Amino acid sequence: MRMYDLIMKKRNGEALTKTEIEYMISEYVAGNIPDYQMSAFLMAVYFRGMTEEETLAMTMAVAHSGDMVDLSGIEGKKVDKHSTGGVGDKTSLVIAPIVAACGAKVAKMSGRGLGHTGGTVDKLESIPGMRTSLTQEEFFSVVNKTGLSIIGQSGNLAPADKKLYALRDVTATVDNISLIAVSIMSKKLAAGNDCILLDVKTGSGAFMKTVEDSVALAKEMVTIGENAGKRTVALITNMDIPLGNNIGNSLEVIEAVETLNGHGPADFTEVCLNLAANMLYLAGMGEVEICRKMAEKAITDGSALKRLAAMVEAQGGDASFILDTGKFARAPYAYEVLAQRSGYIASMNTESCGIASSMLGAGRETKESEIDFSAGITIKKKMGDYVEKGEVLAIMYTSKEELFEAAAKRYQEAVIITDEKPAEEPLIYARVTKDAVEKLY
Amino acid sequence: MRMYDLIMKKRNGEALTKTEIEYMISEYVAGNIPDYQMSAFLMAVYFRGMTEEETLAMTMAVAHSGDMVDLSGIEGKKVDKHSTGGVGDKTSLVIAPIVAACGAKVAKMSGRGLGHTGGTVDKLESIPGMRTSLTQEEFFSVVNKTGLSIIGQSGNLAPADKKLYALRDVTATVDNISLIAVSIMSKKLAAGNDCILLDVKTGSGAFMKTVEDSVALAKEMVTIGENAGKRTVALITNMDIPLGNNIGNSLEVIEAVETLNGHGPADFTEVCLNLAANMLYLAGMGEVEICRKMAEKAITDGSALKRLAAMVEAQGGDASFILDTGKFARAPYAYEVLAQRSGYIASMNTESCGIASSMLGAGRETKESEIDFSAGITIKKKMGDYVEKGEVLAIMYTSKEELFEAAAKRYQEAVIITDEKPAEEPLIYARVTKDAVEKLY
Repeated sequence: MRMYDLIMKKRNGEALTKTEIEYMISEYVAGNIPDYQMSAFLMAVYFRGMTEEETLAMTMAVAHSGDMVDLSGIEGKKVDKHSTGGVGDKTSLVIAPIVAACGAKVAKMSGRGLGHTGGTVDKLESIPGMRTSLTQEEFFSVVNKTGLSIIGQSGNLAPADKKLYALRDVTATVDNISLIAVSIMSKKLAAGNDCILLDVKTGSGAFMKTVEDSVALAKEMVTIGENAGKRTVALITNMDIPLGNNIGNSLEVIEAVETLNGHGPADFTEVCLNLAANMLYLAGMGEVEICRKMAEKAITDGSALKRLAAMVEAQGGDASFILDTGKFARAPYAYEVLAQRSGYIASMNTESCGIASSMLGAGRETKESEIDFSAGITIKKKMGDYVEKGEVLAIMYTSKEELFEAAAKRYQEAVIITDEKPAEEPLIYARVTKDAVEKLY
Repeated sequence: MRMYDLIMKKRNGEALTKTEIEYMISEYVAGNIPDYQMSAFLMAVYFRGMTEEETLAMTMAVAHSGDMVDLSGIEGKKVDKHSTGGVGDKTSLVIAPIVAACGAKVAKMSGRGLGHTGGTVDKLESIPGMRTSLTQEEFFSVVNKTGLSIIGQSGNLAPADKKLYALRDVTATVDNISLIAVSIMSKKLAAGNDCILLDVKTGSGAFMKTVEDSVALAKEMVTIGENAGKRTVALITNMDIPLGNNIGNSLEVIEAVETLNGHGPADFTEVCLNLAANMLYLAGMGEVEICRKMAEKAITDGSALKRLAAMVEAQGGDASFILDTGKFARAPYAYEVLAQRSGYIASMNTESCGIASSMLGAGRETKESEIDFSAGITIKKKMGDYVEKGEVLAIMYTSKEELFEAAAKRYQEAVIITDEKPAEEPLIYARVTKDAVEKLY
């Protein structure tokens, strides 16, 4: 078998066989296929696409290029959730405790933030003492004890994906739906859960800018998951505005706790309930409507919040911060960002809001950057709200006074104020299963 | 400027600017753009194509990546001819002397053979003493004295093309018409002639298998040439059968001399007269019909043959071989290849005929292989001829007895004999100028 022939085959619009794809991935990881051949292949995929059989074979080959996590040491149904990344996305901190409180298991490996989106692991580390790097034994023990655990990615998961992604990133072959689906699903399959809920974000703050693209990506991923023998569902959720009102690490933990207390922002609470209900559905706890009721109850009876506190404690964190979020250190500087004209907020460039928060110190510019856990933004006015000129749009928190001005400018530019009230947007666009796309608005 | 953005631009179907293309080529040759980015770009070009402005800019950038030959030391109009490569293609040995005899200049740098096609330089070297590696001073002096000189490629012509071609060759991006046009024309522009005749071969023995593809390639090359300020014309010629009857180095020199003596095969003579007439037309010697008459006269009055002998002598060769081709050493072994059935020759796989000749010792398998100058094939029956079973199809010459059997098998397989007489094919399909495609059949 020669890589040259595989490039030619794809270039000419033919499908590769499973054997050919397995050869290609294993030889690429082994260093026997050079980057210049792989990048030509990836560009050919960009134009020719891949069949359902090809994406499955490639996902499996990429997953098997490294460790395949075995979660059989954890009792019960293990449900994973994957978000394609959003600004202010602290849903994991809310839904994992809800799902655990309702009887399914969440053994989640999560990423760190880079660029304009934060990482769940960074948010958790704003809790003093919290450890996100556990041995497998500790990880299993926390899940078996509390029903959930969220840790940083460890081990050698899908190294082929790392190598392929690094190459795609410099050869303009990132934004192809099949390749994105392979990249996400290979890591999900390697992570060893029984079922997978995909939260595909759509809008200005998301990788997928249109609902159509998001549905297409969701379909490919759900198909791969189901073909690989995992129950898989995707929700297409709105990322045209930041999720909830807080952006920043400890600010988001505080908002998550408020939500588990039943006092969270309505939009964020609604999205969390939908995600949790679908995770419970995947875990076999009943129809989605029944699961939704279970999730609501886990908030009202306080059982979900208890699970979060239990997990924090089991991972060495100070659980008193969860019971009293007033204990979190406040940033030394707080500034108000003011509306520069009167009118309705017509749109918010969510990506820019995330960047503004990052500029205040909440994010990383490079992998080595230190995070300012208390930095971030509390949004006071959101899309559709009417504001008077000079009214407070948001409050910015930072430990470095000099960072405020540029961040505020970025935020002000991201918030478009017009005379007309914008049409209301749905929070959740659609639910994608292996058989159907259910429109939810 | 970043190569990433240029890949993205091309991938999205946009045209690159001249400045962007110049940056890309110079940085690639300098080693500052890695192969994996260039191969992704080339694959994007395969799918998106390039505009007329882009191919011109890329051709100029590739040409200027190395030496630009200055032929101003040669008086008169310098006309180049380029063939896309054919089996038995000894046209240069015939038309260069004709053109010189008619008053234009041919200062030609030619390649060596590799694979199934022979190289003009190898053919010339079958003449004892013949030197094909001259200093620039010697080269100019031979042309000024005799009107023509054919030497091997020297200097550092279009190094970007070498680097790009090597990459295309392993990434399935060779067969794109724009990239082929850039590759050929960059070398032609670097070679410094005033005008360029392109002989685009079409058929089983050629790179372009259909007339349509050949015309498309010819159009792109003529456009590049004219846009670069060189008068350029292309002829689309038939390569469904070998050109002339002899394949092999000294065998082809002998056939070229016979043609200059007026005794060459009719098909080969006709192609040569057309090519020579168009070269003279480009050199400004009058309309093509008038130039054709001049070319015919250069054969009948013996002036063209004298030019060939003069060039051979000026380059150190024994010109008596030109005046008496009986002096060429004969191969020690000659074998007849017999027809295995009766019928009409319906087709000849020209590429296989070339490979058979190469198998007898006439060609090189690698750049380092030694050539057997006397080895080759004399074709006795061509397409359309009727043969009886057992009749001689061809005679094979070699210095190594053991090479015959496999070569004969290859040749027999290449010649398809059927009951029906095949339709006659034109020798020349079309003439492509900057304004028109003139159909010639």
